[in-house]
Amino acid sequence: MAEPIYGRVALIGLGLIAGSMAHAMRRGGLAGEITGTARSAGTRAVADEIGLVDRVVETAAEAVAGADLVVLAVPVGAMGAVAEEIAPHLKPGATVTDVGSVKRAVVDAVAPHIPEGVHFVPAHPLAGTEHSGPRAGFASLFDNRWCLIVPVEGSDRDAVARLERFWQGLGANTDEMDPDHHDLVLAVTSHAPHLIAYTMVGVADHLRRVTDSEVIKYSAAGFRDFTRIAASDPTMWRDVFLANKEATLDILGRFTEELFVLQRAIRMGDGDMLHDYFTRTRAIRRGIIEAGQDTDAPDFGRSGGRKA
Amino acid sequence: MAEPIYGRVALIGLGLIAGSMAHAMRRGGLAGEITGTARSAGTRAVADEIGLVDRVVETAAEAVAGADLVVLAVPVGAMGAVAEEIAPHLKPGATVTDVGSVKRAVVDAVAPHIPEGVHFVPAHPLAGTEHSGPRAGFASLFDNRWCLIVPVEGSDRDAVARLERFWQGLGANTDEMDPDHHDLVLAVTSHAPHLIAYTMVGVADHLRRVTDSEVIKYSAAGFRDFTRIAASDPTMWRDVFLANKEATLDILGRFTEELFVLQRAIRMGDGDMLHDYFTRTRAIRRGIIEAGQDTDAPDFGRSGGRKA
Repeated sequence: MAEPIYGRVALIGLGLIAGSMAHAMRRGGLAGEITGTARSAGTRAVADEIGLVDRVVETAAEAVAGADLVVLAVPVGAMGAVAEEIAPHLKPGATVTDVGSVKRAVVDAVAPHIPEGVHFVPAHPLAGTEHSGPRAGFASLFDNRWCLIVPVEGSDRDAVARLERFWQGLGANTDEMDPDHHDLVLAVTSHAPHLIAYTMVGVADHLRRVTDSEVIKYSAAGFRDFTRIAASDPTMWRDVFLANKEATLDILGRFTEELFVLQRAIRMGDGDMLHDYFTRTRAIRRGIIEAGQDTDAPDFGRSGGRKA
Repeated sequence: MAEPIYGRVALIGLGLIAGSMAHAMRRGGLAGEITGTARSAGTRAVADEIGLVDRVVETAAEAVAGADLVVLAVPVGAMGAVAEEIAPHLKPGATVTDVGSVKRAVVDAVAPHIPEGVHFVPAHPLAGTEHSGPRAGFASLFDNRWCLIVPVEGSDRDAVARLERFWQGLGANTDEMDPDHHDLVLAVTSHAPHLIAYTMVGVADHLRRVTDSEVIKYSAAGFRDFTRIAASDPTMWRDVFLANKEATLDILGRFTEELFVLQRAIRMGDGDMLHDYFTRTRAIRRGIIEAGQDTDAPDFGRSGGRKA
């Protein structure tokens, strides 16, 4: 096994992402020791019971003591307070990173608390499942997924390179991006789609003439594809939308315009326009398959291997 | 092997659904002989080459001669013309069914052409993939999926029961529903979600500041879940929206209202409202897993078995 990339890694928050990082760090031998903490006593107890990290401690201050890498894996809205809490306890030369889905708001909330001599290198792994909590993680979550590294003004190049190596060791491909562009790209690829999925699931739930049990039984016709992302952690997503308000509202505005154009084509019976539109969207799907970011197996492998 | 349910089955149209029916009929020994035809000579040639059915013929009239079951598996907008074409050639006592995603418009277009002594029993299997054409089918497509049987006024109960047994033999669960309720349920579970997915993919494609290659690379963050359904057959979907105009526009109107409420909550910073909303949508997802209409495997099994 290779030399660990960091001697001690502290995980602040022990949910799906931090838990998967712990599993993947062990798989790759990336850390000498892993400490972890979570605000909830219940979460800490579960993490302790399943041996998620080497040492579960009660406070973030304890967790970061002596850590070479500190990972903020809490909802975006809690990042600033955690940074303030840990600041006096950070080891000189340590790197602080995060895994938040929004970057400008995290940079603005965290950077002012980072002491001289400590490196701050934000990051965002583009991976997840509908599950959350300390039992949800697994070692391969980041395999062949992207992790965006978002250096800030003055980020030490060696600290950035080391964090990239670390994420590659966790299985991810890495790219660098600036915070504002990150937030726009994610508004398109993640934040707007999530809000839209939540909305469609809400509409189905409210409809009186179609029962929830009908929606559930007949979901394989398309609706099902919306529900995974609409089952994601509510606290995390509340914070994402509030923290990436501008870009999300921009994309949702464009989405509504575009939807109205298609609704009008349906109302006017403009079949040619609909056909052209639907033909163009196929190309993007093909690109995703070719880029290895999805499988083209019929039914996404959902049939659980019963496929002929 | 059990006795076939129908002596001769004629498939009009040889795409994903008809092709999967052919594979599943053979798996279950449900038909004595399968004939098939398609409007495109290229499709007929491929079907012939791969032996998709027992006999590929050039016209629908030839295909239905002597058939005990005739399956209309063409886009919804083409059903009326096909019914008119085959009507004089239908065997007395035969059953005509279809697999269209919209039922009221198909009933209105097809029923007037069905001769006395021939049974018309519309149906709709809720199954599909993003692939189309004569090579796309596979025998297990309908396994554990629902097929809605939509009897019309005067449908012969024995003919209905026989068609239900046939669909169960293809692997599906069956339910009966009337045409108008079918169209509303499908507008919620399928038609509106498809249009929304097409729209979101279109928005991503139009955005100048984010490149298509960025959208594709970073699609795993949520966008990917929209693209499978936005890659479905354009002709089929054009016809679905035009044929189920009222119910689709009704649901899209509700969707837009609801989306505006959530957009406003984001703009006003109403985190409690967002959190409550996102919490409620989780329950529907759990229902879908429990109903066996999806898997709760992390990442939908997309990682291709690399999961720990």
